Amino acid sequence: MLSKAKIKLIVQLKQKKYRELNNMFIVEGTRNVIDFLQSKMSLVEIFATNNWIEDQDFNTNEFHTNKVTLVELKKVTALSTPSEVLAIFKLPNTDFTGYIVSNNFSVVLDNISDPGNLGTIIRTADWFGINQIYCSNNTVDAFNPKVVQATMGSLARVKIIYTDLESILKNKPKDLPVFGALLVGTSIKELEPQTNGVILIGSEAHGISEELLPFITQKITIPSYKNDINNPESLNASIATAIICYALKG
Amino acid sequence: MLSKAKIKLIVQLKQKKYRELNNMFIVEGTRNVIDFLQSKMSLVEIFATNNWIEDQDFNTNEFHTNKVTLVELKKVTALSTPSEVLAIFKLPNTDFTGYIVSNNFSVVLDNISDPGNLGTIIRTADWFGINQIYCSNNTVDAFNPKVVQATMGSLARVKIIYTDLESILKNKPKDLPVFGALLVGTSIKELEPQTNGVILIGSEAHGISEELLPFITQKITIPSYKNDINNPESLNASIATAIICYALKG
Repeated sequence: MLSKAKIKLIVQLKQKKYRELNNMFIVEGTRNVIDFLQSKMSLVEIFATNNWIEDQDFNTNEFHTNKVTLVELKKVTALSTPSEVLAIFKLPNTDFTGYIVSNNFSVVLDNISDPGNLGTIIRTADWFGINQIYCSNNTVDAFNPKVVQATMGSLARVKIIYTDLESILKNKPKDLPVFGALLVGTSIKELEPQTNGVILIGSEAHGISEELLPFITQKITIPSYKNDINNPESLNASIATAIICYALKG
Repeated sequence: MLSKAKIKLIVQLKQKKYRELNNMFIVEGTRNVIDFLQSKMSLVEIFATNNWIEDQDFNTNEFHTNKVTLVELKKVTALSTPSEVLAIFKLPNTDFTGYIVSNNFSVVLDNISDPGNLGTIIRTADWFGINQIYCSNNTVDAFNPKVVQATMGSLARVKIIYTDLESILKNKPKDLPVFGALLVGTSIKELEPQTNGVILIGSEAHGISEELLPFITQKITIPSYKNDINNPESLNASIATAIICYALKG
């Protein structure tokens, strides 16, 4: 049973303001919820249908689980079709401490605004074994339900940090390469696979900010195959990130 | 000025039923509208603000253009924030005649259901010079406003065909390779670039259908870099398509 107070809370958690106020966010869907339960993330409570609870091969009594109906979940879901499970987790810490990771790749996102893009980038980074993503403070919130959904559980594994990108790039180890995705640069087909580095991706509308350009040590571009006078201007930001991850990883 | 009849028409065109009934679809945003105007697509009419009309470096009188206000566009837009221009075009023919293209790559989509994924795949195919996409009849409609938006103008250049995939694959030239994206197969890192072939992509939820598997001549997979007991299950369908296009193009 979903009380009025819980309905209000869950609906409010769709907004960043209330996520921060309550220090919580919502996760929907079996894959996502199970990946979060298996991670270091801290569960507040689960709302699930009887069917869902019976279908799990773990004891849901180990977790704070509330039986609810699909009709109740429909009232609060952020999805177009509700899943049989919704969970509330505590927001993890996304503040930056220390230095940018230098023994692996990291993805640095400058003002990504589309939740689907951010979610897909998190999912893709996870696939390529990239465990940390640094986001500019104006990048869309990773705990937005649309982002959580698009990560398909990967948000439980990839560390997300919101910070001032200029200062982390200023303080990075000198020999750590910064690959900046631009429309003009060295074709990534010509680069050898790398062992580590920063993959810097600009916003969907404006690319990489002026003030971050000086930190790029290698301008890279994805070759296009133009065959018309009228050509595509660019690739989607999550697509560009994925192709660069694929090309740079050995 | 936007008449009641036009408002009704535009709103109805968000639904496939009415697109087919009227043989029309809507295109929003400057980049999209201009790409469509420069293509072989057939314009019905443009609705644009005075500002937009004055900003264009072509004579909008050449086209059937209606001056409207942003407030009026807000009533009919399929976007969260209306653009200053919306146009109605005639639906192009998406029926299949003849044989699958064999002198280039083509993308074949089996039951892609997310509009953002289809739009991104169309945009990506365009970038890689792939001019035709064959979709199963149960793939989401390419003229859905969310798809049109995500293509960023590429839908004006890439030919979309809805057809029975089994029959086009059955009738393809024998020596045309069919690369099937699967979770188990040859790593695409190990494949040489190719000159032509079919890139077969399965649905987000179920992968490639049972009945299409026999047509695959080369099972391919995108290597993952697992670093945890709990790993991502798969990549987003548009991401997988993009990486495969990148890897197979020379």
